[in-house]
Amino acid sequence: MNSVKLGLIGLGTVGGGVARLITEHHDRYLEHYGIDLVIQRACSRSEAEAQRLGLQEGVFTSDWRDVVSDPDIDIVIELIGGEHPATEIFEEAFKHGKHVVSANKALLGRHVEHLASLAAEHGVQIRCEAAAAGGIPVVSALEHDLVGNEILTIAGIMNGTTNYILSRMQHEGLAFEDVLKAAQAAGYAEADPTADVDGFDAASKIAILASIGFQTRITTDDVFMQGIRNVSATDIEMARDFGYAIKLLAIARKTSEGVDVRVHPTMIPAAHQLASVDGAMNAVYVVGDAVGETMLYGAGAGSFPTASAVVGDIMALAEPISQGKDPIPEKEPFGRNLPIRSINQLTTRYYIRLSVEDRLGTLAACTNVFAQHGISIAHINQKETHDDEACTLIYVTHEALEKNVMQAKAALEALDGIREVSSIIRVENIDSWAEGVFAN
Amino acid sequence: MNSVKLGLIGLGTVGGGVARLITEHHDRYLEHYGIDLVIQRACSRSEAEAQRLGLQEGVFTSDWRDVVSDPDIDIVIELIGGEHPATEIFEEAFKHGKHVVSANKALLGRHVEHLASLAAEHGVQIRCEAAAAGGIPVVSALEHDLVGNEILTIAGIMNGTTNYILSRMQHEGLAFEDVLKAAQAAGYAEADPTADVDGFDAASKIAILASIGFQTRITTDDVFMQGIRNVSATDIEMARDFGYAIKLLAIARKTSEGVDVRVHPTMIPAAHQLASVDGAMNAVYVVGDAVGETMLYGAGAGSFPTASAVVGDIMALAEPISQGKDPIPEKEPFGRNLPIRSINQLTTRYYIRLSVEDRLGTLAACTNVFAQHGISIAHINQKETHDDEACTLIYVTHEALEKNVMQAKAALEALDGIREVSSIIRVENIDSWAEGVFAN
Repeated sequence: MNSVKLGLIGLGTVGGGVARLITEHHDRYLEHYGIDLVIQRACSRSEAEAQRLGLQEGVFTSDWRDVVSDPDIDIVIELIGGEHPATEIFEEAFKHGKHVVSANKALLGRHVEHLASLAAEHGVQIRCEAAAAGGIPVVSALEHDLVGNEILTIAGIMNGTTNYILSRMQHEGLAFEDVLKAAQAAGYAEADPTADVDGFDAASKIAILASIGFQTRITTDDVFMQGIRNVSATDIEMARDFGYAIKLLAIARKTSEGVDVRVHPTMIPAAHQLASVDGAMNAVYVVGDAVGETMLYGAGAGSFPTASAVVGDIMALAEPISQGKDPIPEKEPFGRNLPIRSINQLTTRYYIRLSVEDRLGTLAACTNVFAQHGISIAHINQKETHDDEACTLIYVTHEALEKNVMQAKAALEALDGIREVSSIIRVENIDSWAEGVFAN
Repeated sequence: MNSVKLGLIGLGTVGGGVARLITEHHDRYLEHYGIDLVIQRACSRSEAEAQRLGLQEGVFTSDWRDVVSDPDIDIVIELIGGEHPATEIFEEAFKHGKHVVSANKALLGRHVEHLASLAAEHGVQIRCEAAAAGGIPVVSALEHDLVGNEILTIAGIMNGTTNYILSRMQHEGLAFEDVLKAAQAAGYAEADPTADVDGFDAASKIAILASIGFQTRITTDDVFMQGIRNVSATDIEMARDFGYAIKLLAIARKTSEGVDVRVHPTMIPAAHQLASVDGAMNAVYVVGDAVGETMLYGAGAGSFPTASAVVGDIMALAEPISQGKDPIPEKEPFGRNLPIRSINQLTTRYYIRLSVEDRLGTLAACTNVFAQHGISIAHINQKETHDDEACTLIYVTHEALEKNVMQAKAALEALDGIREVSSIIRVENIDSWAEGVFAN
């Protein structure tokens, strides 16, 4: 039995968790799986981090090139995030014949095809379970367990920060800005929350999962993206009255017109499983034509949950390596080249909140705009505000075409007496996720 | 690239689904994974089944020995269930150097150790994703994705029939016997529902999952087992009043006193994720020390969902085989030999329903029995029944020792004025499932 030599690049939240988990469980892995994991080199900006983690003398380096070029190392673990020098780390590692395990969703969301091709060329593997939904084994489910299926839908809550914010807004009736500040103070949100709050993080993850699940090339730039900054306490309260909860969902569906892939605040029935996913937890629906609906739930971030996914990937490579065998190399990815369906082609129900002058004829004028755009209305609710001269008008439509709704929005904004179209939230037709499942 | 030759034994609900799925998706598997699956032989009692499935001439046999001894076959797929001749099929297949994929929970729940040893000896693999929770990839999560963790708890709803029955009892206020009859008529329950209703099926599954997750030998016979026959509409209604739902849970926990492994009707908080798992669906919690709480949800039975798991297993073996490589053989299983903790040592809260004579002193006498056995009471509820001379008395205890509760039960039954102790339902301390998770 060979020991398996690891080169760890990045010793922050995730890298530190990986080092601690491997140290803590080294003897367990050896006893139960016959796998001897050795952290051969560890790279970070500060040697103090390596010392704090109890790594042995000589393991630390501040230069990632020392790691990727070390002839003893079998697996490079890239946990620094961002595009550079992460891209160079992948490329150099491949050239030196090393497999790469990574949690880098921003990089893989944009460049998984290039990197996977390069890995295939060099006969090595990329593994990235930790890059989508943290500790939840959804990449593995798509790459291995569910390969008997044609995957129809991948959808869910893939960003813990926004789910934490929306959960607190929902349970405590608080405003977005107030919860964001509290979340930043508590360490649940970054000082710069943009990537989470504006949907980029969830978009990267759904791009990775949809690429794998649908075997087609989808990058983060293909994903329609809308964050939660515009969701108000009023929207959440109104949603509750209609029997809905508001979640930031990442959704990818294979449709006859191409891949429908998007991230936006979404109204879902309050009784749906995803509606009860609270706080920083993640949950991903995967619908396959044979298996039907499945859901995987767990921690989408955090030091140890993410380390669990990284170590799972390491162990999968380590099993053959420790027996002197080569892991099966990456295959040329993404045989399909499915078109991406524009958000304009989406047909769903919409919740639309307007702030209007409180005067005769405004309601009729608004309602008329919807009719002119072929949008049929299911509910109307007019709400007084504290400001005597304005009121809140809420429409929920029947199924309508996104393009028509956006044109109606522009027309509403041009109307006299309309202060603003404050918020448009898509009401997801969750039943459509299971379209194409085989009847038993 | 080599084609991968399959020998299918059993063409019933699951076997038929496997044949249909492989036929339907043959070209997809070839195109996207470079894997050419060929059903070389298919065995069942009736040739009509093979014809209905469109299997080619010469594929059908009524003798399983033709399948396991066919020198061309790489993988034997055992889908007949039961102990015999399934055991002989495994043994003969191993002797002929063939890997075995199986959905046979009854066999593996009792004999997984013997069969895994034998597979290891012959350098082949057993794969059994479909044997626990159908299409949900929980075996794979325990065997691969979560191996970085020490697994602490595996628990959940693992039997669709009983969950269907309890869901309908809950939503429609019906009695057990009436729903069972309806379930049998609708095909959700077998004509002989014993294995489902009395907990044996769930016990087999938790034995398999706990053996894999805890790397120790646990058989179905080690599992404390109590079914749902005794759960009444009253219990479900009372549970709701207390803020609970009643589910048949299979629970395995690694404790300092040994493995706590049991199947019984369980009260869980109505707001818990498992409480909203409705109908025939399954959901399994896996708690690891690094990943924390995860849950996997999906169809636990049915032709195509189970076939999804079987084909996932086939594809995992087929990947190396089609490249002319040997899959990594089964390892000698279960390094640990953890003791099984007796149900008598369980400490939890209990819901206890009594039918008593409606006369002075009965309540005091009952309450006194609990005090004598060191059981402290959290709630008492007395309910009139239609029968004027009896009433229903319900106790919910604080945490108490199972042994004491059972002694109290005997003492209550001996009391004058007690008609019966109608039901005792354990109230699970779900927070204990996450004991031992690393702090982030």
